[in-house]
Amino acid sequence: MASENLWAGRFRESLAEIAHRFSSSIALDGRLYREDIAGSIAHVRMLGATGVLAVDEATRIATALEEIRGEIERGELELDARHEDVHMAIEGRLIEKLGPGGGALHTARSRNDQVALDERLYLRSALDGLADAITELQRVLLKCAEEHAGTLMPGYTHTQRAQPVLLAHHLLAYASMFDRDRERLLDCRRRTNRSPLGAAALAGTSFAIDRMMVAGELGFDGIVENSMDAVSDRDYIIEAVAACSITMMHLSRIAEDLVLWSTPEFGFVTIGDAFTTGSSIMPQKKNPDMAELVRGRTGRVYGSLISLLTMMKGLPLAYNRDMQEDKGPMFEAIDTTRDALAIMAPMLASSTFHGTRMASQADAGFSLATEVADYLVRRGLPFREAHHITGRVVAHCVERGCALNDLDPVAFRTFSPLFEEDIAEYLRPATSIALKGSAGSTAPAEVQRQLAHWRGVLGARA
Amino acid sequence: MASENLWAGRFRESLAEIAHRFSSSIALDGRLYREDIAGSIAHVRMLGATGVLAVDEATRIATALEEIRGEIERGELELDARHEDVHMAIEGRLIEKLGPGGGALHTARSRNDQVALDERLYLRSALDGLADAITELQRVLLKCAEEHAGTLMPGYTHTQRAQPVLLAHHLLAYASMFDRDRERLLDCRRRTNRSPLGAAALAGTSFAIDRMMVAGELGFDGIVENSMDAVSDRDYIIEAVAACSITMMHLSRIAEDLVLWSTPEFGFVTIGDAFTTGSSIMPQKKNPDMAELVRGRTGRVYGSLISLLTMMKGLPLAYNRDMQEDKGPMFEAIDTTRDALAIMAPMLASSTFHGTRMASQADAGFSLATEVADYLVRRGLPFREAHHITGRVVAHCVERGCALNDLDPVAFRTFSPLFEEDIAEYLRPATSIALKGSAGSTAPAEVQRQLAHWRGVLGARA
Amino acid sequence: MASENLWAGRFRESLAEIAHRFSSSIALDGRLYREDIAGSIAHVRMLGATGVLAVDEATRIATALEEIRGEIERGELELDARHEDVHMAIEGRLIEKLGPGGGALHTARSRNDQVALDERLYLRSALDGLADAITELQRVLLKCAEEHAGTLMPGYTHTQRAQPVLLAHHLLAYASMFDRDRERLLDCRRRTNRSPLGAAALAGTSFAIDRMMVAGELGFDGIVENSMDAVSDRDYIIEAVAACSITMMHLSRIAEDLVLWSTPEFGFVTIGDAFTTGSSIMPQKKNPDMAELVRGRTGRVYGSLISLLTMMKGLPLAYNRDMQEDKGPMFEAIDTTRDALAIMAPMLASSTFHGTRMASQADAGFSLATEVADYLVRRGLPFREAHHITGRVVAHCVERGCALNDLDPVAFRTFSPLFEEDIAEYLRPATSIALKGSAGSTAPAEVQRQLAHWRGVLGARA
Amino acid sequence: MASENLWAGRFRESLAEIAHRFSSSIALDGRLYREDIAGSIAHVRMLGATGVLAVDEATRIATALEEIRGEIERGELELDARHEDVHMAIEGRLIEKLGPGGGALHTARSRNDQVALDERLYLRSALDGLADAITELQRVLLKCAEEHAGTLMPGYTHTQRAQPVLLAHHLLAYASMFDRDRERLLDCRRRTNRSPLGAAALAGTSFAIDRMMVAGELGFDGIVENSMDAVSDRDYIIEAVAACSITMMHLSRIAEDLVLWSTPEFGFVTIGDAFTTGSSIMPQKKNPDMAELVRGRTGRVYGSLISLLTMMKGLPLAYNRDMQEDKGPMFEAIDTTRDALAIMAPMLASSTFHGTRMASQADAGFSLATEVADYLVRRGLPFREAHHITGRVVAHCVERGCALNDLDPVAFRTFSPLFEEDIAEYLRPATSIALKGSAGSTAPAEVQRQLAHWRGVLGARA
Repeated sequence: MASENLWAGRFRESLAEIAHRFSSSIALDGRLYREDIAGSIAHVRMLGATGVLAVDEATRIATALEEIRGEIERGELELDARHEDVHMAIEGRLIEKLGPGGGALHTARSRNDQVALDERLYLRSALDGLADAITELQRVLLKCAEEHAGTLMPGYTHTQRAQPVLLAHHLLAYASMFDRDRERLLDCRRRTNRSPLGAAALAGTSFAIDRMMVAGELGFDGIVENSMDAVSDRDYIIEAVAACSITMMHLSRIAEDLVLWSTPEFGFVTIGDAFTTGSSIMPQKKNPDMAELVRGRTGRVYGSLISLLTMMKGLPLAYNRDMQEDKGPMFEAIDTTRDALAIMAPMLASSTFHGTRMASQADAGFSLATEVADYLVRRGLPFREAHHITGRVVAHCVERGCALNDLDPVAFRTFSPLFEEDIAEYLRPATSIALKGSAGSTAPAEVQRQLAHWRGVLGARA
Repeated sequence: MASENLWAGRFRESLAEIAHRFSSSIALDGRLYREDIAGSIAHVRMLGATGVLAVDEATRIATALEEIRGEIERGELELDARHEDVHMAIEGRLIEKLGPGGGALHTARSRNDQVALDERLYLRSALDGLADAITELQRVLLKCAEEHAGTLMPGYTHTQRAQPVLLAHHLLAYASMFDRDRERLLDCRRRTNRSPLGAAALAGTSFAIDRMMVAGELGFDGIVENSMDAVSDRDYIIEAVAACSITMMHLSRIAEDLVLWSTPEFGFVTIGDAFTTGSSIMPQKKNPDMAELVRGRTGRVYGSLISLLTMMKGLPLAYNRDMQEDKGPMFEAIDTTRDALAIMAPMLASSTFHGTRMASQADAGFSLATEVADYLVRRGLPFREAHHITGRVVAHCVERGCALNDLDPVAFRTFSPLFEEDIAEYLRPATSIALKGSAGSTAPAEVQRQLAHWRGVLGARA
Repeated sequence: MASENLWAGRFRESLAEIAHRFSSSIALDGRLYREDIAGSIAHVRMLGATGVLAVDEATRIATALEEIRGEIERGELELDARHEDVHMAIEGRLIEKLGPGGGALHTARSRNDQVALDERLYLRSALDGLADAITELQRVLLKCAEEHAGTLMPGYTHTQRAQPVLLAHHLLAYASMFDRDRERLLDCRRRTNRSPLGAAALAGTSFAIDRMMVAGELGFDGIVENSMDAVSDRDYIIEAVAACSITMMHLSRIAEDLVLWSTPEFGFVTIGDAFTTGSSIMPQKKNPDMAELVRGRTGRVYGSLISLLTMMKGLPLAYNRDMQEDKGPMFEAIDTTRDALAIMAPMLASSTFHGTRMASQADAGFSLATEVADYLVRRGLPFREAHHITGRVVAHCVERGCALNDLDPVAFRTFSPLFEEDIAEYLRPATSIALKGSAGSTAPAEVQRQLAHWRGVLGARA
Repeated sequence: MASENLWAGRFRESLAEIAHRFSSSIALDGRLYREDIAGSIAHVRMLGATGVLAVDEATRIATALEEIRGEIERGELELDARHEDVHMAIEGRLIEKLGPGGGALHTARSRNDQVALDERLYLRSALDGLADAITELQRVLLKCAEEHAGTLMPGYTHTQRAQPVLLAHHLLAYASMFDRDRERLLDCRRRTNRSPLGAAALAGTSFAIDRMMVAGELGFDGIVENSMDAVSDRDYIIEAVAACSITMMHLSRIAEDLVLWSTPEFGFVTIGDAFTTGSSIMPQKKNPDMAELVRGRTGRVYGSLISLLTMMKGLPLAYNRDMQEDKGPMFEAIDTTRDALAIMAPMLASSTFHGTRMASQADAGFSLATEVADYLVRRGLPFREAHHITGRVVAHCVERGCALNDLDPVAFRTFSPLFEEDIAEYLRPATSIALKGSAGSTAPAEVQRQLAHWRGVLGARA
């Protein structure tokens, strides 16, 4: 049976057992006990400092709260379904310990600002954790890229071979993507890191509190000014989960690349045994399960985003109980994204990229046809015409079952008199990439510049 | 550390601890142990019956599986994170009990068809449970409607008073909506209730098994024919969660009605104390929390739907590990929908509808203006003109701050000569609804017909 | 400027231009003019038949409506943004043609039931169209499967080669999936095909109408009984879009298979030139664009589903203007799904499957390892042990860089004495699939049975 | 029939008509013609400046492009379904005008970087437009708040009266929410405003281009460095649509408040006639349609977000044709959000807030109970006990059907001896809000501070 509710003064009938089970959130918000206690301690200290409570009363409560944290951590105080939520569980225990005087803790606050505080404290730390996990993954990407700064491979568009690129260049594309993800998470952190405490239920409080003192003690950059805004919005959580969704989208793409490259048909990579699994029936299988799970869990985070957006749609101001449902999706999105980042880094590090195989395919499939067209352009043909002539050269090769570099200059000249002896030089992948002199291209010099950039950036992070 | 994996024959390095944690699904699929054991028993009995295994070997395995079920139920065998999944946990325990001979259970099947089987068994039962919960809710709606078969209230469109209706009529609209939800769940059950077992990894098996025998024993209507289809689709789960989403949409609407009607501004309903809660700071509050939570949890189920749809998007045939991620959203959607149905029924039953207050508002806000327009139509005016004249009558009343029935026939005649003495009779809500003779309308006779219909339909269900 | 609104009687100020633009729905609902006119004709005929209107008045209106349909079809009457919606545009034109008497059409109905009627008429026909498009696609799948009833290929799990299968078997897995999609669409059609007309605004009407007569004339199976339900739900649209979402999910998977198989790395299929496109820069490219677009448009349909579910969440009864927003997502989901089905059929038909290449890979990658394990089981080893021994055989081959059928029986016997001379026979893909005797397997006989089944089923459809 | 494709060199069969229709994107990307031409002009000028093309050749092309822009704007060049996309339509017209020399425009670029450029140019401007629309809405909120700086109303939690607040305070909560939305849009603008041009297909180009020159000319802050990243990501679009989704969530809440407050039951607001509409059947109706449509269209933007996230999930690098599908959801989300912001501002400005009615309800429903509890705390009772006693006072009043301020001090003292004569002073809403001295509270002084803050912030924006 549920413990008696602390708000039960005006009720004649107690909450139905089914309603208690339906509304108890402790299975989820129990995770926030550290944040809840830290927030309560800062609150009660401020109440002491401002004279709302006597200093020794405040100290007694703060000390008891620290004891309660210890009890929870040692498993002596169970946060379980008898409680309505983590806040009531802790306050209830406080009153058990201190008698009615424990009830002074809730002076000048409401669960509405208290829960918003706990969530902001949690989220701030979670966002930092995600940013660090991204840095770790970027470091692995950089390391792999450094090892493969000279490895040629076919670059793909439409999953068809397009032009030769360096494996390092392909990997660094992900480093850039994840860097924007990190920026988004940190932009969100900036908006998250403001204290809602003191908004009370919705209107502020008549006690002479100091909101800035609490904010400062808890490391916030400031307060959420408008008290109704402070308790009734969850946009910072939605923003965080949107940033997680985009991060997962990027992770799903690198996962897809790994799955594809692990096929015997591609044969570009072997993921370490420690990150693959076997089959319950087929003894030969070595499956890229972790990559598949990263890809599959993308859906979870997208789903969390929709859960939150739906929950908030059309709610009148200020707090509504619907908003209790923010915790499940928030935790799920953060946990899933953090775990996916955390597995991707060592999985990539464990992987062997088969440079020889990759390089051998870099000029297959007419990947160098663009060079032929550009050759003609440099000799004065408008690009579109050069493109068309090259298309006919390719069609000719397809019909004859040969490669571009199987044609000699004479054969080339049957398509255009502009071809000279040196056309053969352009039909090598190494030449192709070396020629790509544009900024940010796959040319070795440009890739080296990118590598240096990332070494600098990642080295500068703690 | 993870127990050694049963598929580990070809691997040189064991799974990384982080990879084990990342890929273990037992925290979720542990819920399926009953289905897994029931499926295994049916499978092994069939293997015995068809001679693939010796009968006594099959019997020994079946008996051991029953023992394992007991061990789990008594808490002696913990399904925890050391195991990869529930299937491996149970098979591992079986081999512990029986020695290598226990390994014969997995003859002629794969985890691919095994997990699909478990999910279909679970889902079949879950869908039945949801259908029953809907019936229960419909019974409460019927009961409330019967009690309020004569209660007038303002019917709303755009949350503005539109025309008088009977409260019973409003409640029975929900009975109809939930009935279609139930139909959808049962249509899905039909598609779910086919056995995938025997598809093995994807291609079928070379053992002389009898798929129909297993299907029959487990109460399936037949088998999923194509073996690749059997292991690689999850459309039945997505369909179920889509049906749950629509059900939650309906529940969110009745929840919204309850929230709205519970405001002092409306004052139409008082939800029982047992289904409302108080505030941690405002002693007077009596909040419709359960209704708000039902409304808020709608987002969870929508999110689960998106999780599943995203997960399956673009996966090549056949099984991919991504599909392991179906369990979280499936359980969450089913649990949430079942809980929301289960709370709505007693919450409604606990509610007091304030008939007098409702009735007193039934003719407020010019709810009877349509009667005036229809009056003119019956006297020969085209509807659109009648509508326009009535609009002018209403505007006149708004300006003068009076109600329609404050006007006498003389006043009415200044707008049209077609008004006669009897116009006053039409300006009573009871007349208005009594006149609504069309099928399915809010007229008392029609509502009685609907009540009789539902008594019949719901009475006929077990 | 907007035409004057037919409902403007009580208003002093006309609708702001920006508000008119914001709320006008004709750009979307203009598509429903046929349904709107058909519904109006049925309605007015019923009004004549029941004596609500004089018969000649009803006839005159019906005739004028037919003329208006002609005007729209000939482009003489433009449905454009000056109108609020298609209903008002047509009624406005009717009054232009017939004078005030045209206003009689709207007797005993409201836009609320009118729009629900139009949408149900549209959706019924759209669902039939989708069901037919699925049948067409299934016919192409069947034809391809018949042509490749003997083509061996590697079957995949985790995008890794798993076991040999017949290409026909792989293709027929999709035939099954799409068949369930068709069932879902037709189940939804059943719930859609009921007439809401006569519900009027929400409460029914006081005119002596005959709802069943209208329903019968328009080909409905019956009426939506409860009038508030009739005008305030859109579950049938959501159900249809959910069914479309699942269909798109299936289409995205076959699209993924085509993209994968079109890579030179796989080399399994060449999509016809008529269904591939080139690159603006790379002259050699032949991209599987149509398959990619099918896969990419999956997101659109998922998005439409979320739009609708979000829109309906938490709306109180009965009609709310939010519900006007159902048309965009409905049309988008139906159009996208129909187009994707319509392109997939000829694209598949245009494709050349490279049977020799596929077959050559059917035994690569140790795809026959399961046969080795099953061999040992048939000679008495428990499956799990057989699996483990086979795993070691595979590891041995991997180390030595050889294939399973490079080992002679002597080499096999170093792993288990149970291996005999005949092990070599099992190491051929053709043997492997022939042995798969279980129902629904990839064995030629089972595939022939499936082909016969589909010939029967699809032949029986008009 | 489609015009011949510019990339058709290697193809033997032309694109099927159905495939052309299926893949043509011009109906959507035709909107980008201005961006496309501006980008092309900057590109060709750079080609001239760097010597890749002759200066006069570059000038001739730039001039022709300007002419084409004029042709499109004057309706002389139709962008219709004969074209594959806007890029090919414009390049095709260029070649028509200049002969084969027009084909030189596409030197050193690909559609892959071209389309990314167009989208970034469009989005940058769209984000600025949204930011401005938010400022406009905030100005209206500020103006309403200034007019109602002294208007008392009941503040709500759980849609139940909680504590008195000032209407200005409630309105300024929205000003804060929209300010964070604006910040998010501008953070996204920062990431959007980098030039992808010069990435070419994916690898960069061998022509000696100057990416920074193009970036500078087009007003970008820099370039997207890695060329594969530049053409294969769409995270900036998803981020923008996520920010729009959150903005719509906030708009849906203010819309909900307006719908609720417009009911006769609340009676807090009358939206101007110019922003409400009537009923086709009920002459008295004055519906808050614009607010409902804002609320309903929230779903569209959420749906667009899911479309984009789904589309990008699991795509391997680099460009895939799926990504063409980004335009529909992007335009829909931007248009919908901009329209919703644009209607909300004048709708709010048109609204009359009924201050007297609001104030009369500010102390109804025991809204001042928190004052009673706080009173006891100030006299030494721990909050939780004070809360409990006040709950009993409220229950007593509920039973007796009286209000808190119907009790005299004697009656209060039966609940606690701490009550003194001055308790009556606390039972007035004006006292209640005046006492709320905490920062950001609803106290008049604090609200004045907020008003001054917003005057400063909004005044400083152009």
